[in-house]
Amino acid sequence: MSFNMNDIIYKKREGGELSPEEIKWWIDGYVKGEIPDYQVSALLMAIYFRGLSKEETYTLTAAMRYSGDTVDLSSIKGIKVDKHSTGGVGDKTTLVVAPLASACGVPIAKMSGRGLGFTGGTVDKMESIPGFRTVLEPDEFLAQVNGIGMAVMGQSGHITPADKKLYALRDVTSTVDNFGLIASSIMSKKLAAGSDAIVLDVKCGDGAFMENLDDAVTLADLMVDIGYDAGRRTVACITDMNQPLGKAVGNALEVQEAIDTLKGRGPEDITELSERLAGIMIYLGGRADTPEKGFEMAKDALESGTGLAQMRRFIDAQGGNEDIVYDYSMFPQAEFSEELKADKAGYVSAIRARQIGLASQKTGAGRETKEDEIDLAAGIVLNKKVGDRVEKGELLATFYGNDPAKVREGLEEAAKAFEISDEQVERPELIKEIIGL
Amino acid sequence: MSFNMNDIIYKKREGGELSPEEIKWWIDGYVKGEIPDYQVSALLMAIYFRGLSKEETYTLTAAMRYSGDTVDLSSIKGIKVDKHSTGGVGDKTTLVVAPLASACGVPIAKMSGRGLGFTGGTVDKMESIPGFRTVLEPDEFLAQVNGIGMAVMGQSGHITPADKKLYALRDVTSTVDNFGLIASSIMSKKLAAGSDAIVLDVKCGDGAFMENLDDAVTLADLMVDIGYDAGRRTVACITDMNQPLGKAVGNALEVQEAIDTLKGRGPEDITELSERLAGIMIYLGGRADTPEKGFEMAKDALESGTGLAQMRRFIDAQGGNEDIVYDYSMFPQAEFSEELKADKAGYVSAIRARQIGLASQKTGAGRETKEDEIDLAAGIVLNKKVGDRVEKGELLATFYGNDPAKVREGLEEAAKAFEISDEQVERPELIKEIIGL
Repeated sequence: MSFNMNDIIYKKREGGELSPEEIKWWIDGYVKGEIPDYQVSALLMAIYFRGLSKEETYTLTAAMRYSGDTVDLSSIKGIKVDKHSTGGVGDKTTLVVAPLASACGVPIAKMSGRGLGFTGGTVDKMESIPGFRTVLEPDEFLAQVNGIGMAVMGQSGHITPADKKLYALRDVTSTVDNFGLIASSIMSKKLAAGSDAIVLDVKCGDGAFMENLDDAVTLADLMVDIGYDAGRRTVACITDMNQPLGKAVGNALEVQEAIDTLKGRGPEDITELSERLAGIMIYLGGRADTPEKGFEMAKDALESGTGLAQMRRFIDAQGGNEDIVYDYSMFPQAEFSEELKADKAGYVSAIRARQIGLASQKTGAGRETKEDEIDLAAGIVLNKKVGDRVEKGELLATFYGNDPAKVREGLEEAAKAFEISDEQVERPELIKEIIGL
Repeated sequence: MSFNMNDIIYKKREGGELSPEEIKWWIDGYVKGEIPDYQVSALLMAIYFRGLSKEETYTLTAAMRYSGDTVDLSSIKGIKVDKHSTGGVGDKTTLVVAPLASACGVPIAKMSGRGLGFTGGTVDKMESIPGFRTVLEPDEFLAQVNGIGMAVMGQSGHITPADKKLYALRDVTSTVDNFGLIASSIMSKKLAAGSDAIVLDVKCGDGAFMENLDDAVTLADLMVDIGYDAGRRTVACITDMNQPLGKAVGNALEVQEAIDTLKGRGPEDITELSERLAGIMIYLGGRADTPEKGFEMAKDALESGTGLAQMRRFIDAQGGNEDIVYDYSMFPQAEFSEELKADKAGYVSAIRARQIGLASQKTGAGRETKEDEIDLAAGIVLNKKVGDRVEKGELLATFYGNDPAKVREGLEEAAKAFEISDEQVERPELIKEIIGL
C-alpha cells in the first residue's frame, strides 16, 4: 500500500489516528531512505503535540522491532528473561542481577548498548576488564548462554535500524521527550532482542529522564502494555534516581562495586535493588512460584557466593581473567585523585544525581559525542549517601582519572551536588512502585 | 552570535518567544545550508502549534526580506505602489489595475511570480501575448517604469531565497497554513520588491487559501501590521472568492478579459474590483486626496480609454504587438471546446471557485508540478455568474484546450461546481472589508 507522507503529517497534526498501514509504510520508507528526514522530523513534532494512541504506539513498536534483524533465542533452553534500565547515575545493576538470576537457573542472553552521557553503558563497563570481549558471533553468544547460563554482548548493528535512525533525528530536533516515542523506542529493541519476559527498571528522579513519579508511572504503564500486546510478560519497577545508585560512578569503579555487591559487601541500595530485580526475573523465568520466593533465591545466591561464581564464569567465558574479582589492581588504574570534604557538619540531605553524573562525565568517565574515548579508570566514589551523618572536614567523595585537570573539574562540578542539613534526614525509598506483577 | 538549533526548536516547542537574534541566526544558517531541513521542519511544526508573536513575525519577515537581493526603486520618480493578491480563481486584476493606476500617474514597478495551481501567475498570463518578454534586466525594468510608468517582470531568482527554501519545505511537511508563516512569506517578498506602498487583495472563500472571513481578517491585519512595522503604507481589501472573479479562467482567456475590462466591456465584478483597488493605489501614490477620488480617477481612466492606451504601451514596451488588444486571434487558440449546459431552470446559486479552479487545471491551464507546461489557450469561460437566471439547456460555461480528453475532464470536474436553485439568489458582496485605510 502506498501513502503520501505529507498527508500523514497533516493527519497527525490535526489530531487524527494513523492506521497500522500508514505507520508501517512510513517507518519502512524511512529506513529505506525513501522518506526524507525533514518530513519525519515534522511528523515527530506533530506527534509530540498530539501524542500517540495505544494502538499507534503498539504498531510503531512493532514496525521498528521488525525494521531490521531480530534475535532468535529459540535454541536456548528455558524462559529467557531480559532486563533494561532507562538509565541513571551509578547504575551497575545489570552486572549484579544477571549473575544472580542466571545462578538461579534463568538464562540471560543480553544485548547491551554503549553509553552516551554520564558514564559508559554496560558494554563499556565490562570492557574495563582486560581482555573481555563484547563482540560475539551469534552462534558463540547462543552457545555461551546454553553452556554457562549467561552472555552479554554489544548490540548488533542490524537490530532496529528504524529506532536508531529515529532516535538520532529526535535527538537533534527536540522531539525526544514523548511517552509514546520513548516507550516504543525501548520496547522495540527489547522485543527484537528475543527474550521471553522483560524486567524494566524505570529510574525516577533528577538524575533520570523521568524526573517525577507521575511521568515514570505513565512511561512504565505504557511499556508494560506494549510488552503484553506483543505477548511478552513485562514488569516495571520504578526506582529512585535522586541520588546515585550505590557509591561508585564510572566504568571500572562500577564493575568493582558490582563484584563487591556479589561478595555481600556492596552498598545497601544496590544490593537490595539487585536482589529485588533478580527475584522478579527468577519468578518470570519460572524458577520461583512467587516474586517473593525469587527474591529469597536471589538473596541466597548472593550470600552463598553462587552469584559471584557465576560472574567469574561469565568473565572467563568472554575472555577476561576471572581472578580479577579478587585482584582489583588488574583493572585500569587512575593516576590522579582528589578528595571532596564536607565544609560543615550535619546530615547529607541531597546528593543530586544529575550533578554527580555531569561531574563523572567531566572526570572522563562518560562520552559527550559518539567519537569520544572513555577513561575507564575515571569516576567518583562517594563516601556518604543521603541520610548519613557527616562531620566537618570528613570525606564526601573521591574523584579519579588520568587527566588531573578533568579530575579537578569533576570535583568542582560535584561540589554543587551535596546538601548538608542540620536535621536528621530519612533515607529515600528505593523502589517506589512495581507495575505489571 | 551563535545559537544551537535544537535549543531554538525546544524553546518554541515549549511556547517561548524567539529573540530577534535567534530568528536571524537560523534564517541565515538555513539559507547558507548550515542548518539542515530536518531541524527547520521540526521548528516549523512547533511554530504551527505555538504560533508566532507579532514581534517574531516582524523579525522573521525582515530576516527573509534581507536574505537575498532587494530591489532598489529609488531611481524611479514618485511614490511606487505595489499590488498583491493572495490568489484566487480567474484573478486577472493586476492586468487591469496596473494600467489604470499608472495611467493616473502612479509608477508601477511590479515583480510577479509564476503560478502553481489552478492557472498560471501574472507572468504566465502575459506570456500568452506572442513576443511578450517577462525577463527584463534591472536597468531596463527601471527605465521602462520611468519611461511609460509601468513594467511587470518575473521574480528574480535572488529575491528572498529564505522564503523560497522555507516555502518549499512547508509545502511537503504540512506546515503551510499558519498565519505568521503565510504573512511573513508574502510580506518579505513585497518588501524586498522595493515599492513605497502596498495594496493587498486578500481573497476569501472556497477558492482561496482563507476560506472564512475571520481567517482572512486575521491574515490581512497581520500583513498590514508587518507593512507598517517596516515603514510601508499597506492596505488590505478582503474580497469574495466563492465564485471565480469575472468569467474567464485560463491564461490567454484572462488577458483577453482584462483587455475587455479596460475597454469597458468586462464583467461587473472584475470591473468594480479593479477600479476600487486602483483607486486605493492612486490615493496611496499621492495622486488623489481620498480613496474615493482615486476611485473616480480610475473609473475615468477606464471609461476614457487611457487605461487601455497604457496597456498598449506596456505590451509594446515588453516586446508584444500592441494591436493584439483589437485582434484576439493573435492569442494562442484552443483547438477544442466543449459546452456545459444547465440541466434545469432556476437561479445560479453557486459556482464553487475551487471546483472551477481544479477544472481549469484539468483543461491544461494550470501546473501541477513546477516542470509542467501550461496550455496557454486552455481554460474556461463562464456564461453565468451567481445570481443569474438560467433556463434548462442554456449555456453555463465553455471549456477550451488543445487536448480533447483534458477539455472533457475539465468539463466533468466543473459540472460539480454549479448549483441552481428555484428561488432568486442575491449577488454576493464583492469587497467584504478594507483594512489599513
